[in-house]
Amino acid sequence: MTKIKFETDYQEGAHPKILERLIQTNLEQTSGYGIDYHCEKSKKLMQNLMAKPNSKIFYMIGGTQVNSTVIKFLLRPYEGVVAIKSGHINTHESGAIEATGHKILTIEGHNGLMKADDLRKYLEDFYADSAYEHMVQPGMVYISHSSEYGTIYTKQNLCDIKSVCKDYNLKLFIDGARLGTALTSEKSDMTLKDIADIADVFYIGGTKNGALYGEAIVFPDAEKFDLKSFRTLIKQKGGLLAKGRIVGIQFEVLFEDGLYFENAKHADIQAMKIKKAFEDSKIPFLFESFTNQQFPILTLEQHKKLSENFDYEVWEPVGEDKICVRFCTSWATTDENVNKLINAIKNL
Amino acid sequence: MTKIKFETDYQEGAHPKILERLIQTNLEQTSGYGIDYHCEKSKKLMQNLMAKPNSKIFYMIGGTQVNSTVIKFLLRPYEGVVAIKSGHINTHESGAIEATGHKILTIEGHNGLMKADDLRKYLEDFYADSAYEHMVQPGMVYISHSSEYGTIYTKQNLCDIKSVCKDYNLKLFIDGARLGTALTSEKSDMTLKDIADIADVFYIGGTKNGALYGEAIVFPDAEKFDLKSFRTLIKQKGGLLAKGRIVGIQFEVLFEDGLYFENAKHADIQAMKIKKAFEDSKIPFLFESFTNQQFPILTLEQHKKLSENFDYEVWEPVGEDKICVRFCTSWATTDENVNKLINAIKNL
Amino acid sequence: MTKIKFETDYQEGAHPKILERLIQTNLEQTSGYGIDYHCEKSKKLMQNLMAKPNSKIFYMIGGTQVNSTVIKFLLRPYEGVVAIKSGHINTHESGAIEATGHKILTIEGHNGLMKADDLRKYLEDFYADSAYEHMVQPGMVYISHSSEYGTIYTKQNLCDIKSVCKDYNLKLFIDGARLGTALTSEKSDMTLKDIADIADVFYIGGTKNGALYGEAIVFPDAEKFDLKSFRTLIKQKGGLLAKGRIVGIQFEVLFEDGLYFENAKHADIQAMKIKKAFEDSKIPFLFESFTNQQFPILTLEQHKKLSENFDYEVWEPVGEDKICVRFCTSWATTDENVNKLINAIKNL
Amino acid sequence: MTKIKFETDYQEGAHPKILERLIQTNLEQTSGYGIDYHCEKSKKLMQNLMAKPNSKIFYMIGGTQVNSTVIKFLLRPYEGVVAIKSGHINTHESGAIEATGHKILTIEGHNGLMKADDLRKYLEDFYADSAYEHMVQPGMVYISHSSEYGTIYTKQNLCDIKSVCKDYNLKLFIDGARLGTALTSEKSDMTLKDIADIADVFYIGGTKNGALYGEAIVFPDAEKFDLKSFRTLIKQKGGLLAKGRIVGIQFEVLFEDGLYFENAKHADIQAMKIKKAFEDSKIPFLFESFTNQQFPILTLEQHKKLSENFDYEVWEPVGEDKICVRFCTSWATTDENVNKLINAIKNL
Repeated sequence: MTKIKFETDYQEGAHPKILERLIQTNLEQTSGYGIDYHCEKSKKLMQNLMAKPNSKIFYMIGGTQVNSTVIKFLLRPYEGVVAIKSGHINTHESGAIEATGHKILTIEGHNGLMKADDLRKYLEDFYADSAYEHMVQPGMVYISHSSEYGTIYTKQNLCDIKSVCKDYNLKLFIDGARLGTALTSEKSDMTLKDIADIADVFYIGGTKNGALYGEAIVFPDAEKFDLKSFRTLIKQKGGLLAKGRIVGIQFEVLFEDGLYFENAKHADIQAMKIKKAFEDSKIPFLFESFTNQQFPILTLEQHKKLSENFDYEVWEPVGEDKICVRFCTSWATTDENVNKLINAIKNL
Repeated sequence: MTKIKFETDYQEGAHPKILERLIQTNLEQTSGYGIDYHCEKSKKLMQNLMAKPNSKIFYMIGGTQVNSTVIKFLLRPYEGVVAIKSGHINTHESGAIEATGHKILTIEGHNGLMKADDLRKYLEDFYADSAYEHMVQPGMVYISHSSEYGTIYTKQNLCDIKSVCKDYNLKLFIDGARLGTALTSEKSDMTLKDIADIADVFYIGGTKNGALYGEAIVFPDAEKFDLKSFRTLIKQKGGLLAKGRIVGIQFEVLFEDGLYFENAKHADIQAMKIKKAFEDSKIPFLFESFTNQQFPILTLEQHKKLSENFDYEVWEPVGEDKICVRFCTSWATTDENVNKLINAIKNL
Repeated sequence: MTKIKFETDYQEGAHPKILERLIQTNLEQTSGYGIDYHCEKSKKLMQNLMAKPNSKIFYMIGGTQVNSTVIKFLLRPYEGVVAIKSGHINTHESGAIEATGHKILTIEGHNGLMKADDLRKYLEDFYADSAYEHMVQPGMVYISHSSEYGTIYTKQNLCDIKSVCKDYNLKLFIDGARLGTALTSEKSDMTLKDIADIADVFYIGGTKNGALYGEAIVFPDAEKFDLKSFRTLIKQKGGLLAKGRIVGIQFEVLFEDGLYFENAKHADIQAMKIKKAFEDSKIPFLFESFTNQQFPILTLEQHKKLSENFDYEVWEPVGEDKICVRFCTSWATTDENVNKLINAIKNL
Repeated sequence: MTKIKFETDYQEGAHPKILERLIQTNLEQTSGYGIDYHCEKSKKLMQNLMAKPNSKIFYMIGGTQVNSTVIKFLLRPYEGVVAIKSGHINTHESGAIEATGHKILTIEGHNGLMKADDLRKYLEDFYADSAYEHMVQPGMVYISHSSEYGTIYTKQNLCDIKSVCKDYNLKLFIDGARLGTALTSEKSDMTLKDIADIADVFYIGGTKNGALYGEAIVFPDAEKFDLKSFRTLIKQKGGLLAKGRIVGIQFEVLFEDGLYFENAKHADIQAMKIKKAFEDSKIPFLFESFTNQQFPILTLEQHKKLSENFDYEVWEPVGEDKICVRFCTSWATTDENVNKLINAIKNL
């Protein structure tokens, strides 16, 4: 029997509305490389939502590609990007940032989040070091929202980080691979516009929120950057798709009627049900998350039992006899499967 | 009125069978990053067709990404890749190869094709130069089939190039972004298996032959390479898609019943009709192509007239008063549109 | 009044014998780029000392250049170098390693030294992680001898590290910027030959041991590597000096009569006198070093007083009211200056 | 019998005055990395000579290192450097520029020199190409003075090139590895100040004009650049020498009494004598040079005869039965050796 999968938020295809639209538009003839009506229209939809008519939006394919492209674009050759140790760029991108020639300057994180005070302390210490000229210069800050551990920033958190960035002339880049579920979390106090008001550049993740693939890089205040050749850099990084409209069409569907947020909200709600089930069974969590990733700590016996019928990700050992695992929900997670999981948790 | 487009072979979406299959499989749950049934099955289909059960196949997204990944993989830090001047990596990839740290060592091409004798001469001269130690060492050879000018190699051509490669211990990499239309050309004397027998590594282009996106990199003789971390490199280059199965499904559809070759053959046939129409009107070509790209040389008046109803690519000026343009066909090019074009050509 | 400097081991010029020889040989005519009699002869001297007639030796200019060249040479594009956090490549080389495209994979150090057990644990954990394919692959190990903190490895330490390297197929690279003072330390149980027996590649530092500049990279077992284009890589990295013989002449002088070890021994002896003076005054050390770098922890008052007449490096604050500083000796450190310092320490 | 060498301008050591000064200053104690009195003073001397008190000067070790550092500093990731095909960066630097991630955009040269008209044509064509977004963007211009063929620019030539650069917002970088012999050539109509007035950045070569090693990078108008971390980049590239003062001392000697120009003038004068000898014997040249490199075209017999007693560089075959060779002079070329060569030429 096939197990029910809660492994990731990319284990199904795309939201059906997206596939339908791909079929409807399939024989339209458009120019390549994202110079087409759908790319234009979808960008306009996001610009309106952010109230940033002068922002610039660029499409790429996946998060690792976006991260290495944006970071390469923002940094000078002697600069590095400040990130927490668990930041995706530092752990699971196979050295994509270093491959562009830049060091990741790591500081400690707290449940997947950067603290403004830690950032300030790092920068103070850096410039207090008499040998700082021999060291990689901090040039920008990278954070993820939601984080790799499902946690999210408050608006105050982000403003504090931005404030440090301003004091030290660093650009703030927000990895939004899971921006949807962060914004629709019951604990979120921010909108997409807030993100656009705070970040110097960020991206709106499509792949993990109902698209086949595709991420939208946003420069909210385009005048701050020399973007005239940014598409050339995207091309260099292999991200300028011949059939560029395919991403445009997907973001058009996601943003014309709020589907992007519906998808995310659905994922969050399903995750909260699962969270409650673990809590009801007195099973603790490694990180307290109010988004679509949940990290319960199971005994080995509980793990054995649950894994008979469910697939989920083994995160890391906790002590000798316990294990943290990850359950992930998405736009595609059905009530039926969630209920089966909840029942299984009850019976642990 | 909208013009009829013959601009590129990526101006429509995907072959309808591909979209249908994406809908059928949409709610299947699979692991991410190409570790799934569809990726496995589609690779098997190609391996069988090539009679290379021990080959290794990897999926990536687009040609520029494939080229920079494969070339980075094959070269040592002091080596470069030999290509003709019009090679895609040397002209239209925004410096993707150099961004990996490698020089492109250019030699003259002939209608888009490399000649084995030119390659040998280059290598003889290189090693005869007493200063060769101060120069980038030739480490591999890159060619395109079909070429950027629609032209194709004969089997003998390729064998001759491979022979030089062997003499100088160079790997031969064939860019197959348009491999389909090359193999189904009326002038082709090769099969996919022949390509696999000759190349050290090549790729089977999907984007320009009916897929939404996706290219299949083939190492026909996998034992010659240490490929155990090739996926890590793909990840570093942003090519390990979370929803990796989407490419797998597309190649499954393309290769389970010969659709890949049908698509290509259709494109070639439509192109040959257009070719004949130009010939009948005594309009010359910049390159003689028997594949889906045609390069007629128009007078400025002809160009003005044709461009009233048709979109096509302006290639380059020819003398003072003529211009080479490119007409491109694909799996999606309809008889209706071709006939309209033919009529228009007749009336020039 | 000028202060007496104990800042670094490169604050004077070169050993007088080297300058004399440069004058003697000045008008000899030789070919450029290290293809000359002096380079040959000096390499032979070192090969004999190591009993490695088949080793290959290459000259470069400084440590950062050597490190980034050797590491780039040894690693595949998806690999990184394992080092302790305080390793020079990770702290004070301005991102030279990352600029070649490679990540530094850091583990904890112990007083500047790597422990074999930590290395093994790191590697076990790495391969136990189900996501290891998405992470930078460990490809080699970098250590410094003596370390950035003046500490040194025992032969057993190195053999243990090498043993882990063998188990995981990693190359071991020893940064020998201060190899001289490590080998002549009263606590050393190794010779240059021992280093050559253990390391896959290492370098013999000249700059910090009496040369104007120059480091000798040694591949003890040259057959293990494809070194035929290593000089091309050196050229690419800007290290193939036109007047290559200048380094050759210096190493000739350093190794023809044991000057290299005399210089280092002198530095160590002077450092031990200073060490004793601090010990006699009950001043503690941040690291216990038996080589030419000493790291006493001074009160702010002691620091104020000592710094009136002496220059030395401020290392780092220790708690609120103390400071670790570094005193460095070299081949050029005079008894007179050491005695003045000892007296000053007594009077603290 | 040892042959007399005219191979290169770096076949001897350093000008004796430099070695004397190294001995005089040898036991001075200075801080490392070029923060010392000699570096300061030598820079001041050059600034005064150029009448550029606000210029910034940085020392590095050799030409390849300087070129790759300056070019990396000036370019954005999607930009390349325009150079003629015979430019040193394009031929004999082992891919140092590409190793920093940048393409060299080549145009045809004329006897080693770039023509302003060719540059303008290239740029016009580039921006006229509808696909220019997919191509490496021209970001700067690189030329050598004197060139790799011994030829030099007139002031008008340079001003014309600079004018094109301004029109297209490109920085002009002049490789001055052999700047000395260019400026003292009997055909030169420029001073060092003229170069500083025209170039955005250039370097004053020491290695080929009497120094052991060392090149001085000059940013004449430092305010145009953000140079505050340029030393960090130099460090990253392995060019921040621990004993940085050694270069400072050398440039102090070279510029305090005009030795730099004396050395160059001497080399030029010796070369003109050799030039005349070949002319008197009706031996033609491949390039007409009025600096210290001479490129006569010898018959194979002449070559055989001359090479019995003289070493010089074989440049390239000319037709079936002739060969171009290079004779190089320097500060160290003696009248005695030149006379011997002249006699030998007479007897060909």
